[in-house]
Amino acid sequence: MPLSLPIELDPDASKPLFLRIARALIRDIERGRLHPGDRLPGTRTLAKQLAVHRKTAVAAYDELALQGWIVLQPSRGASVSLSLPDPALRSSRASDPSVTAAFAPPRASIPTEGIAPLVFTDGTPDPRLLPRAELSRAFRRALGSRAFLSPIGYGDPRGSLRLRAALAEWLADTRALAVGPDDILLTRGSQMALFLAARAVTEPGDAIAVEDPGYPLAWAAFRAAGAEVIGVPVDSGGISIEALSSLARQRGNIRAVLVTPHHQYPTTTTLGAGRRLALIRLAVEHGWTVIEDDYDHEYRYEGRPVLPLAATGPLDDGRSAVYLGSLSKLLAPGLRLGYAVANPGVLRAMTAAREAIDRQGDLPLEAAIAELLLDGELRRHARKARNVYLERRDALAERLHREFPESLSFDVPAGGLAIWTRVAPEVDATAWAARAAARGLVVSAGTRFALDARSAPNAFRIGFATLASDEAAAAVRRLADALPSNRSSAGLDV
Amino acid sequence: MPLSLPIELDPDASKPLFLRIARALIRDIERGRLHPGDRLPGTRTLAKQLAVHRKTAVAAYDELALQGWIVLQPSRGASVSLSLPDPALRSSRASDPSVTAAFAPPRASIPTEGIAPLVFTDGTPDPRLLPRAELSRAFRRALGSRAFLSPIGYGDPRGSLRLRAALAEWLADTRALAVGPDDILLTRGSQMALFLAARAVTEPGDAIAVEDPGYPLAWAAFRAAGAEVIGVPVDSGGISIEALSSLARQRGNIRAVLVTPHHQYPTTTTLGAGRRLALIRLAVEHGWTVIEDDYDHEYRYEGRPVLPLAATGPLDDGRSAVYLGSLSKLLAPGLRLGYAVANPGVLRAMTAAREAIDRQGDLPLEAAIAELLLDGELRRHARKARNVYLERRDALAERLHREFPESLSFDVPAGGLAIWTRVAPEVDATAWAARAAARGLVVSAGTRFALDARSAPNAFRIGFATLASDEAAAAVRRLADALPSNRSSAGLDV
Repeated sequence: MPLSLPIELDPDASKPLFLRIARALIRDIERGRLHPGDRLPGTRTLAKQLAVHRKTAVAAYDELALQGWIVLQPSRGASVSLSLPDPALRSSRASDPSVTAAFAPPRASIPTEGIAPLVFTDGTPDPRLLPRAELSRAFRRALGSRAFLSPIGYGDPRGSLRLRAALAEWLADTRALAVGPDDILLTRGSQMALFLAARAVTEPGDAIAVEDPGYPLAWAAFRAAGAEVIGVPVDSGGISIEALSSLARQRGNIRAVLVTPHHQYPTTTTLGAGRRLALIRLAVEHGWTVIEDDYDHEYRYEGRPVLPLAATGPLDDGRSAVYLGSLSKLLAPGLRLGYAVANPGVLRAMTAAREAIDRQGDLPLEAAIAELLLDGELRRHARKARNVYLERRDALAERLHREFPESLSFDVPAGGLAIWTRVAPEVDATAWAARAAARGLVVSAGTRFALDARSAPNAFRIGFATLASDEAAAAVRRLADALPSNRSSAGLDV
Repeated sequence: MPLSLPIELDPDASKPLFLRIARALIRDIERGRLHPGDRLPGTRTLAKQLAVHRKTAVAAYDELALQGWIVLQPSRGASVSLSLPDPALRSSRASDPSVTAAFAPPRASIPTEGIAPLVFTDGTPDPRLLPRAELSRAFRRALGSRAFLSPIGYGDPRGSLRLRAALAEWLADTRALAVGPDDILLTRGSQMALFLAARAVTEPGDAIAVEDPGYPLAWAAFRAAGAEVIGVPVDSGGISIEALSSLARQRGNIRAVLVTPHHQYPTTTTLGAGRRLALIRLAVEHGWTVIEDDYDHEYRYEGRPVLPLAATGPLDDGRSAVYLGSLSKLLAPGLRLGYAVANPGVLRAMTAAREAIDRQGDLPLEAAIAELLLDGELRRHARKARNVYLERRDALAERLHREFPESLSFDVPAGGLAIWTRVAPEVDATAWAARAAARGLVVSAGTRFALDARSAPNAFRIGFATLASDEAAAAVRRLADALPSNRSSAGLDV
């Protein structure tokens, strides 16, 4: 039975009411007046008891749920969480909701209506797998290093030489890129590398051809760099060479083409050998720079990783390819570290722009990650993560297949961290995603990846890496609940 | 007497010879064959002994000195350092010079000819004072926080809400800026804030007026953002209002003016009340945005800190001011964290550009610094640092005054981390700086800060914060050694 207990509100009336309610409940949990598993009054009862608007009570629960103090379930209502927040967050300071709110997921993107949200990301890694203790130790050592303590203070705008050297070795080992530290520019995630590459290879008025569907933040980076963005259709074999070639005839201002040949974003297709060669031929013929975003090269489950275009003649002399990668995919999306490999002229232009924009990276973070790369920790982590993700991929594919035999169809991807699922024509993917959002599940529909909305694929990109088995099961259940016309409601208990 | 001992070179001939020599000597130090204080053979002797070019021997010693294994003194030659490198760097991996080189200061900027370089920075803080243990602990906790481990992964492009909230409080307390977290954008150092501000307030073809002498990296940021940069002379009272006002009449494309009113960069002058008001009046009259770079507000020794222009009517409604600051000056230059305060429209434009350029900051680093700010650690650090720097300022001013009564003249700055010293007309500051560089001392001459080289001030900007007493004494000695025509060579033993 739900508890009914007197709640002592924080007298500091300068705080929003919902935070004061949340804070009072946290205090009750902390002092042991409420125990893990205890049921809380419904929002209607709570609102009446405190003489506040019901929305205020909902907001208070929402905040507590986002912080992990309570769990909201449609069937049971609110109860104190069985796994209370990380002790690190439970200091008196951190338990101030107005302060810990920053630790919660961004509210705007989370449709919470009383239940803890679940997210199918677009393919991010699970930060819970990160070797945190090792990274912390390396960071501590970096803060005590001579380089950091040197009176010079500022470093190379290309980033830590130590990390670039370690990365060069890693790139040579894992993808046959014969590069040295001077061929590499470290950036703030691959996002900055996209921006800088566009600036370096285009002038105002120039255009960059991109895959459609593709990666909207790349388009934003290119436009921010002053380039026009032109879409090229993608089919089940990857970017359409025919369309690209006809575009080349129509438009004289194309200077570069952005591709994701290893695992096309968002469709996960690997570009076949024939198209690879045709693409390279086109680029050479028209003098285009090939910007190759190899954002999740490290995750390959079937077959061998395909070598980058940048490691393929005639692009392998570094003349007309900019190769981009991300260490954030190997670590966590909240750690922003990407890199670009390019010929000296392009790299110099990118470096000069980088220096004007933010001078350099964070020395201790770069040094710490260099250490993890050098001592083999990141390799071990990559192996471990690959195994975990392979298992999650298979389990999710199995679940989706079982739950949605008619509504969804997909190929199990050979690599990467997401499954591209086509939605049956009689169901609208965007409407389905909206209904899922209302049920506390975030899933990205094809419209999110379309440059031209009219040709947006009726599909989902479903990241599988961040959800453990029970979380994935719950997410699939919500997706089933949200299926328009409830076609498969009989199969709810997957 | 210098040692003469057989040196066993690393047989791996793929490494450069000088690194193999350096490595052999490190091995000898590590295994105790060489002890702290032991003298090493001169480079000529070493070169002969190993049958290598003398330059190779010099390069090996250079590398060892940069890494801190040995000390090079003109009088004594090379000897094993009494304070050997940080144990963290002494693992077998780190003791490979080809790897640890990244920890050394950037070589290009350091004129090493056998002596350990000394640097008068342009006014950076001393990273040795940073509360490293506290920062490491906070970083470790942030890596274990729910927000970092949440499956969402990505955060707000404005940066951690927790840090923005803490910063808002800090800005209100320390400089009367009445702002909330939503008025703040966290950036990668103030450099990125400069870039984003220029993008947000100018269109291609627009110009930004800047102080001359001023901050070249700001000009680079503005130009990278597409703005024209127009210089306005600075005199002993700060930016010339007369010149600015006449510029306003001549040029119709000025949209913004960048100023450093608290401590003009590089001259350290505080803009007086009269000019402040005149500047604000001009800005309002012409519809300019005032971009105020308050890069080292926290360091004020005499009088009260002057309030930002952005806290002064009529700019205090946030309509036409972008206020920029840096936490890097409070922490260490290698930790890149700055911020911008602006009105909602400008801040939205800056945030959109920021997202396109690098998406967001590093979650754990922002969370860790938020914690230091919230628990008072950064306030304690600021107080401590201010006391240390006040002492260093006075000691350096005293030394410079004693050593160069005729060649240098300066006002002791009321705040900031550098002394602006005018050089007597009969001595060329640039030539003096070049001679100093050849003697292992980096000092920035006025030409470095001039937009118009013809009007470059004959002066130095001498940062005093990074040098402890003995280091400052040695640096002043080298500066004296380098004085053209050796005017004060009699006073060498300051």
